[in-house]
Amino acid sequence: MASHFTDAPAEQEMVDLEKHDCVERVQWVLNTPKPPGLGHELMETAFSWKKKIPFLNKKSGWKGELLSMLQGMFPILSWCQNYKAYKFKHDIMAGLTLASLCIPQSIGYATLAKLDPQFGLYTSVVPPLIYAVMGTSREIAIGPVAVISLLLSSMLQKLQDPVANPIAYQKLVLTVTFFAGIFQAAFGLFRSGFIVDFLSHAAIVGFMAGAAIVIGLQQLKGLLGITHFTNKTDIISVMKAVWSSFHHHWNPHNFFIGCSFLIFILVTRFLGRRNRKLFWLPAIAPLLSVVLSTLIVFLTKADKHGVKIIKHIKGGLNPSSVHQLQFNDPHIGEIAKIGLIVAIIALTEAIAVGRSFAAVKGYHLDGNKEMVAMGFMNIIGSMTSCYVATGSFSRTAVNFSAGCETAVSNIVMAITVFISLELFTRLFYYTPVAILASIIISALPGLIDLNEAYNIWKVDKLDFLACIGAFLGVLFATVEIGLLVAVTISFAKIILISIRPGTETLGRLPGTDMFGDVNQYPMAVKTPGVLIMRLKSALLCFANANFVRERIMKWVTEQEKDSKGIAEKTIHLVILDISNLMDIDTSGIASLEELHKNLDSNGMKLAIANPRWHVINKLKVANFVDKIGGRVYLSIGEAMDSI
Amino acid sequence: MASHFTDAPAEQEMVDLEKHDCVERVQWVLNTPKPPGLGHELMETAFSWKKKIPFLNKKSGWKGELLSMLQGMFPILSWCQNYKAYKFKHDIMAGLTLASLCIPQSIGYATLAKLDPQFGLYTSVVPPLIYAVMGTSREIAIGPVAVISLLLSSMLQKLQDPVANPIAYQKLVLTVTFFAGIFQAAFGLFRSGFIVDFLSHAAIVGFMAGAAIVIGLQQLKGLLGITHFTNKTDIISVMKAVWSSFHHHWNPHNFFIGCSFLIFILVTRFLGRRNRKLFWLPAIAPLLSVVLSTLIVFLTKADKHGVKIIKHIKGGLNPSSVHQLQFNDPHIGEIAKIGLIVAIIALTEAIAVGRSFAAVKGYHLDGNKEMVAMGFMNIIGSMTSCYVATGSFSRTAVNFSAGCETAVSNIVMAITVFISLELFTRLFYYTPVAILASIIISALPGLIDLNEAYNIWKVDKLDFLACIGAFLGVLFATVEIGLLVAVTISFAKIILISIRPGTETLGRLPGTDMFGDVNQYPMAVKTPGVLIMRLKSALLCFANANFVRERIMKWVTEQEKDSKGIAEKTIHLVILDISNLMDIDTSGIASLEELHKNLDSNGMKLAIANPRWHVINKLKVANFVDKIGGRVYLSIGEAMDSI
Repeated sequence: MASHFTDAPAEQEMVDLEKHDCVERVQWVLNTPKPPGLGHELMETAFSWKKKIPFLNKKSGWKGELLSMLQGMFPILSWCQNYKAYKFKHDIMAGLTLASLCIPQSIGYATLAKLDPQFGLYTSVVPPLIYAVMGTSREIAIGPVAVISLLLSSMLQKLQDPVANPIAYQKLVLTVTFFAGIFQAAFGLFRSGFIVDFLSHAAIVGFMAGAAIVIGLQQLKGLLGITHFTNKTDIISVMKAVWSSFHHHWNPHNFFIGCSFLIFILVTRFLGRRNRKLFWLPAIAPLLSVVLSTLIVFLTKADKHGVKIIKHIKGGLNPSSVHQLQFNDPHIGEIAKIGLIVAIIALTEAIAVGRSFAAVKGYHLDGNKEMVAMGFMNIIGSMTSCYVATGSFSRTAVNFSAGCETAVSNIVMAITVFISLELFTRLFYYTPVAILASIIISALPGLIDLNEAYNIWKVDKLDFLACIGAFLGVLFATVEIGLLVAVTISFAKIILISIRPGTETLGRLPGTDMFGDVNQYPMAVKTPGVLIMRLKSALLCFANANFVRERIMKWVTEQEKDSKGIAEKTIHLVILDISNLMDIDTSGIASLEELHKNLDSNGMKLAIANPRWHVINKLKVANFVDKIGGRVYLSIGEAMDSI
Repeated sequence: MASHFTDAPAEQEMVDLEKHDCVERVQWVLNTPKPPGLGHELMETAFSWKKKIPFLNKKSGWKGELLSMLQGMFPILSWCQNYKAYKFKHDIMAGLTLASLCIPQSIGYATLAKLDPQFGLYTSVVPPLIYAVMGTSREIAIGPVAVISLLLSSMLQKLQDPVANPIAYQKLVLTVTFFAGIFQAAFGLFRSGFIVDFLSHAAIVGFMAGAAIVIGLQQLKGLLGITHFTNKTDIISVMKAVWSSFHHHWNPHNFFIGCSFLIFILVTRFLGRRNRKLFWLPAIAPLLSVVLSTLIVFLTKADKHGVKIIKHIKGGLNPSSVHQLQFNDPHIGEIAKIGLIVAIIALTEAIAVGRSFAAVKGYHLDGNKEMVAMGFMNIIGSMTSCYVATGSFSRTAVNFSAGCETAVSNIVMAITVFISLELFTRLFYYTPVAILASIIISALPGLIDLNEAYNIWKVDKLDFLACIGAFLGVLFATVEIGLLVAVTISFAKIILISIRPGTETLGRLPGTDMFGDVNQYPMAVKTPGVLIMRLKSALLCFANANFVRERIMKWVTEQEKDSKGIAEKTIHLVILDISNLMDIDTSGIASLEELHKNLDSNGMKLAIANPRWHVINKLKVANFVDKIGGRVYLSIGEAMDSI
């Protein structure tokens, strides 16, 4: 292409050489090795665990193998060897800060889940300990969270009324926890963590915002001191219930206490944000509020004047709850389904929060290992009176700011909560219910990410639709419908893009051997008489093959019409660049054949440029290459040079 | 790149020039025009009909516009101007041949649909006439077909027993026909013909084969002269019914007549295939069988000895059935659903057969126009006592072999059937029922395409799974389940490929500036210190972004491990070729950012090569380009030259 010699024979030789090269390169395209089949790929995925089992792998001694397997299952064995005193100091500080935030939140979330307050505390003891042994994240703070508590109560109270029959309801919650753990562990063990990816980022943003508003509305019950309240979670039912209560039995004392401490917590948070050194202030503010409000109620005897108080919290270590798991319940199918939904949402939240902090510290979080750890912590939790625990957004951030170094901070927190359970539960007797509502409400703004919603709107409108769908679904219908809407929109988008692919016309980029979309690169030059098209799809299959064929034919016809009269510009060659195509099926091949026939009867030739491995193999098997006269080339440039 | 000069300044100049070019080309990538938004694309699709309405388009006179619109709606106006006498001769021959095959088949298919025989004949009168005026195919033969008849009876007899209440059943069939017509016309008018593409080629092959076997089994009732038979269509119920009948009330005379004429028809088909000139022999064989068997029964009075005969067929032109359409039926939703399924299957069959013959003759079949034509023919059919008509595989082939030139052959056929209805229905009195069964059975082998099934197996194993799924679903469950299985497998495949994309490592193809997959092109050379990867997906979205990121990181880590010790081979640059990516969402961008952070903390740089229009635009909006330091290049080669 760039010969500076002028004597003819040498040039001739060079051209010949180039031609020879080109012919040889066509052979490269046609004589590729056979690609691995479907079976091979499936086997590879399914048996990747094989490498992980000792004894099957005889390279190193079995002792070393066993140790590395144990270290794989219990990452604590790896990092505890390098554990230093200065790290422990940091972890103790972080763990204590965490505990001061965790205790009031746990009690609040337990009431949100319609359980007795001590269940929240139980859930902050066992799961963090299990996670510390098995998990890979160093920052994540394990315990009950708002969204999961809401999910459990909103889905389970259809099966069992928590007020009428609290014991049966509690058994249901524990059984759901067990199932959630089983599902989570199974996802991790079978390396099917992609299930978590089915909730797109946009859907989660919308879902969390909707859930936050729903939780906030539910707290109006506690804040207003209402006794009878709706069980539904949608905004319309809740607003109606609040409206009707307003006229009857609400108590301004509750509202006053709740609101003043809410303002206190929000002010401390504002201060903490302004001055990074005061990070501990918002972290201990909830506990401080509890202590202060309890004191006030105790001293003023406000409980006699209609201020609702927590009263009794059962103390002592988590009791065993193995016998409470119910596998012969008539609703067992429904329970398992709820377990699955809760498992996925819990994993989504935990892995999202774990990953974002791991990225900040620059280490890798193994999604599958995380799932196994979460699964075991919930399975064991369900046997020790815990409900579903996961990684909390707000507490993980506090843990990180407090300078945690390893999962030891979780252990410190668990021990602190355990000590409170043993010694201090009686002190919560006079704690007003309204203060729990303020603590829950104060955690909600972190779940509403308007900034991210705006980013999604800027980048992708369909993504934003999924986000809004999830938000409105949660707000106006139920939590499940919100999730369903989001997942449906997200997958509809994938299918839509696959079945309605565009095509683009290419031109040569000046000064290069490359070809680009003439719309994207307005400087690209079209070659007269040649139409170069590229598919905007990774699949040419039943769902889009006819569409693509008709689109190409329409384009060709229009180009022909435009160039009528200018004889030399009549198209005689259509080059189809299929470098994007990853796979083709029988319908796709049939439509290419039909395209070839149609072009042929109009006196045009079809050439194929840059087919991929699986595609060229299938085209050969289906005899398509012979049918178009072997016009398959390595690149568009070579196709144009050859014809 | 190919400079043969040796003096240094000139070379330097050239290098500078090249560098300048390269920088300029990077600007091409970054400063593309803004791509059209989602709204624009939707508007374009939705308002493409606007061009078709006269008066809105003032370029030519409104008379010309009106004429061209009428010609668009009624293609007969275009081609009838060039209609010649020799064409008419061919069409008359083809039409008569068609009628001789159509009359016995119509009667048979009507019994398959559990309707009185005359409904089959009615369906061969009105729809072909409408189609001849509105359709674009020249070969397609319109009328009742086996699969649609089976579908109607198998789905409708759940709503209404055709034996106990034939009038109500008949009303249901007509209402379904009306709905099917409405759906078909709507698909065409709203240019949503892609609905038909949802049934993949493989699924249709499996579905048709399953339906053929089910229809064949159902014919055992007629062939064996059984009175009481199961209403179910699955192979197990039918075989049980046949088995229990075997011991009680079946009549060997029926079986003898049916089998001998079945053999006769199959022999004539064999002869017709061996000698192309005898194509008329298999075409008239069914009518000949009917005439002969009727004569035999009449002469031997075999109906007195247990041979079942058709008895009365109501003669005369199609009566109006407008008053029989039932829109206030309690099952109206179910009826509309059945109408939708029947509409799609009927269109799939008609368009597949129409397209294949259009491709042979080298003209274009407009899918949307076809749908409108089919829709109107079924709407008008439902008002004139016809059930769902569509293009028949077997009769279209006969029409083609008989040398039809235009849709006039359909008109000739319709008139012939109409004359038979007026004059000859009494002659069918003694026609044995068994002969109808043989005629239906003889048409079935054409629906079972083992050869194509083998091709599908060779080309694509997952496609074959959809094929087998449809086949077994129809055979062992119901027709609907078979369809559902096939559609599910087909779409699951699209989603699977989208969410589990592979990545490939690229190397430079010797002697070129191109980079290819090192597995596909074993001669490709990797550059030391640089890892070039390409995504095998058109979408980087929530469902696959994490998977892709983890896969790339794993690959990078493995490469690092392999090259340990060889200092110069340590990877310092990862080039991600995203030329395949058509779209990216917020999750995709987030995972690219995380990938960049991960690589960065390991001392590697990330560069992006060859982004597409929408992708580079979104990356710019999301500030990703700035975050990776502007390392976005037009091609892999330029990325390597620049860094």
